[in-house]
Amino acid sequence: MKVKNIGEFELIKRISKLLPPLGHDVVVGVGDDVAVVELDENYYALLTCDVQIQRVHFDLNFITPYQLGKRAVAVNISDIAAKGGIPLHFLVSLALPSHTEVKWIEELYRGIAEEAAKYNVDVIGGNLSSIGGPLVVDLFLLGKVKKEHLLLRSGAEPGDSVFVTGSLGDAAAGLKILLNKELSKKIPECEKDFLVAKYLSPTPRLEIGQLIAASKKASAMIDLSDGLSSDISRICEESDVGVRIWVDKIPISEEMKKVARLIGVQDWVLALKGGEDYELCFVCSREKSCDLLKKIAQKGISVTEIGEIVHKKRGKVLVLNEKEIPLEDGWEHFKNESGDRGN
Amino acid sequence: MKVKNIGEFELIKRISKLLPPLGHDVVVGVGDDVAVVELDENYYALLTCDVQIQRVHFDLNFITPYQLGKRAVAVNISDIAAKGGIPLHFLVSLALPSHTEVKWIEELYRGIAEEAAKYNVDVIGGNLSSIGGPLVVDLFLLGKVKKEHLLLRSGAEPGDSVFVTGSLGDAAAGLKILLNKELSKKIPECEKDFLVAKYLSPTPRLEIGQLIAASKKASAMIDLSDGLSSDISRICEESDVGVRIWVDKIPISEEMKKVARLIGVQDWVLALKGGEDYELCFVCSREKSCDLLKKIAQKGISVTEIGEIVHKKRGKVLVLNEKEIPLEDGWEHFKNESGDRGN
Repeated sequence: MKVKNIGEFELIKRISKLLPPLGHDVVVGVGDDVAVVELDENYYALLTCDVQIQRVHFDLNFITPYQLGKRAVAVNISDIAAKGGIPLHFLVSLALPSHTEVKWIEELYRGIAEEAAKYNVDVIGGNLSSIGGPLVVDLFLLGKVKKEHLLLRSGAEPGDSVFVTGSLGDAAAGLKILLNKELSKKIPECEKDFLVAKYLSPTPRLEIGQLIAASKKASAMIDLSDGLSSDISRICEESDVGVRIWVDKIPISEEMKKVARLIGVQDWVLALKGGEDYELCFVCSREKSCDLLKKIAQKGISVTEIGEIVHKKRGKVLVLNEKEIPLEDGWEHFKNESGDRGN
Repeated sequence: MKVKNIGEFELIKRISKLLPPLGHDVVVGVGDDVAVVELDENYYALLTCDVQIQRVHFDLNFITPYQLGKRAVAVNISDIAAKGGIPLHFLVSLALPSHTEVKWIEELYRGIAEEAAKYNVDVIGGNLSSIGGPLVVDLFLLGKVKKEHLLLRSGAEPGDSVFVTGSLGDAAAGLKILLNKELSKKIPECEKDFLVAKYLSPTPRLEIGQLIAASKKASAMIDLSDGLSSDISRICEESDVGVRIWVDKIPISEEMKKVARLIGVQDWVLALKGGEDYELCFVCSREKSCDLLKKIAQKGISVTEIGEIVHKKRGKVLVLNEKEIPLEDGWEHFKNESGDRGN
C-alpha cells in the first residue's frame, strides 16, 4: 500500500501508534501542527515546523526568493498564532541544488530575516545541505504561550459558534491567476494584485490569535492552511463534535467571486477547499463572543460567524439553500498530488 | 555565481551578514550546528536540526528505513552531545514521494522511535509533505544544558591538547564497502560488519559529551560529522587559534587500515576527511586532562591525544614524518557533490 492510497491524515494516525507514550511534560504531541510541552511555571513551550517544497508549495516561475522567504516564515508564525502563542526563535534548514545562485539564496534569507524581524523572532541557526532535486525550505519555530492562554483544537462544544477572520478562498484564487494566463488577462490589475498577494504573501494573524487566546472566551482555534473544510474537521475530530457550516455566511471577497465565476467554480467551493488563506478559525459560545468580536474589529480585522458546533452524531455538514450536504475534505498531501497547488 | 563555487561554509558566512543582530537572550546563533539561547536561571536551551537526503546522505539500496530512522536520530543527538547537553524533544519533518510504501514509513518511524527512546527523547510532532524528488528526513531537536556545563567551539587556547574518542575513518571505510562490491568481497564478514555498522548506525557519544562538559576541564568540543580536518578547523576558526595534528597518533582501526590498503588510499587521509564517525573531538590542557581521560576510559570508550593547539600565525598543519603539511578541508556540501558520500 502506498502513501497516496491512504493520505496524510491516515498516515499520521498510523505513525502516532508507533511512538512510545509521551513524557509527562508533553501536553500536545504528534497529530497537531504545534507540539506543546512544559517550559516553566507560567509558560508552555510551542514547537512547530512547516516546509516549503518546490513544485509542491511554490513555483519559481511566479515567486521570488524574497517572497518565498517571507512566506516560509509567515506560515510557521501562523501555527503559533493559532495557539495564542509568542514566536521566539527560528532554525532554517535548506536543501539546495548545487547550481543554485548565491544571489538567490541571499534574497531568500533577506525575506526570511525581514519577515522574522517583523514579529520579533530571531533566526538563530539551521542547516544547509545539497539535494539532487527540488529546493526545500524547512523552518523550525520555537515559541511559548502563557499556560492560561493556551488554546487547543479540542475544546469545542455543541452550541458554540464557529467564526473566521478575513475572507476565504482569496489565496486559492490568487494561485489560479498565477497558473492561468488567460484568466489573468481577464482580471483588472488591482484585483489581481490583491488576490495574488493573498497567496504569495500571507499575513499570519498573530496579534488576533493572541487576543483571542488571552480573552479566554474561545473554546478551540486553528489556522486555515489546508482549507476550511479540512481544518474545521480537525477541530471536530479533536473535540469529538459535529459542525454545521452555513455556506451563505462564508466571507468571500468580490475579487474572489469574479475569479470563481470566470473559471466556472462555485465561490464557496474555492473558499472551503482552496486553503493557504492563513486566516484563523475559532469556536466560541455566542454569549461570550460579543466583547471579543468587538476587540477583533477594533484591530481592523473582519470576523464572521459561519456556523455552529453540533453533537457528533449530527455529523459535519454544509447548510446550503436550507439543505444539509456532507462536508468534504479539502487539500491533503499525497492524495491531492495531481491538484493545482503551486505546481 | 553558484553555490557550488563558494561551498557551504562561505555561504553560511554570507547568510550571517544578512541577519539582524541577535536578541540578548541568544548565546550562540547562525554558524554553529547548535543554537544556544537562554532558558531559565540554570539552563540554556539548545536547538539543532540535521537532515538526511536520499542520494546525498543515504542510498536506499543499502540502508533500511529502520536504520535510516535510527541514523537520523543519532546524528542529531550527536550535536547535542558536542555541547554537553541533554536532548529533550524531536520534531520530524518528512518529505515523501506519493508512491512511498506505507510500510516503509512505518519502519522509518520504528527506527526513529526506538533510537529516540534510547536517549529518553520524545518525538512530539513534525510535518508531512509530498515531494517530487528524493526522500527528505529532516529532524529538529530541542535540548538543554546546564549553563555552567556549556562547552563551545570557541575556547581552545595555544598549548591545549586535542583529543578524539574512538577510531576515525571507520564510517568512511564502511561506506566504501557498501559502494564497491569488488572491495566488499575481499573483506571478511565480521570486519565488514564492524565498518558498515559504523557508517549505517553511528553511536552518538552523548554520555561522554556530558561527562566532558560536566568536568569543566575542556576548553572546546565538536562532534566529528564532516571529518576531523573540517571539524578541527571550525574549532580553530571559532577560537582564533592554529593546530598541529600528529598524523601517526590518529586512532585508526585495523579493519579500516585494511580497506585503505585495498583501495590504495592512505588510512590517515580517510581518517581525516572521511567524516560521519560522530566521535567527539575536544580540547583540554594536558595537565587538566588526566582525571577526565580516566573517567572516559572507565566508560569503555577509548580516547587519544592527536595534536596540540598553537598560535593562529602557525596555521593549521598536519605533522607527518616530522614535516608540517597544511591541513586541508574535508567534506563540504555543494563543493563535494561529485564525491562518494552516500551516492
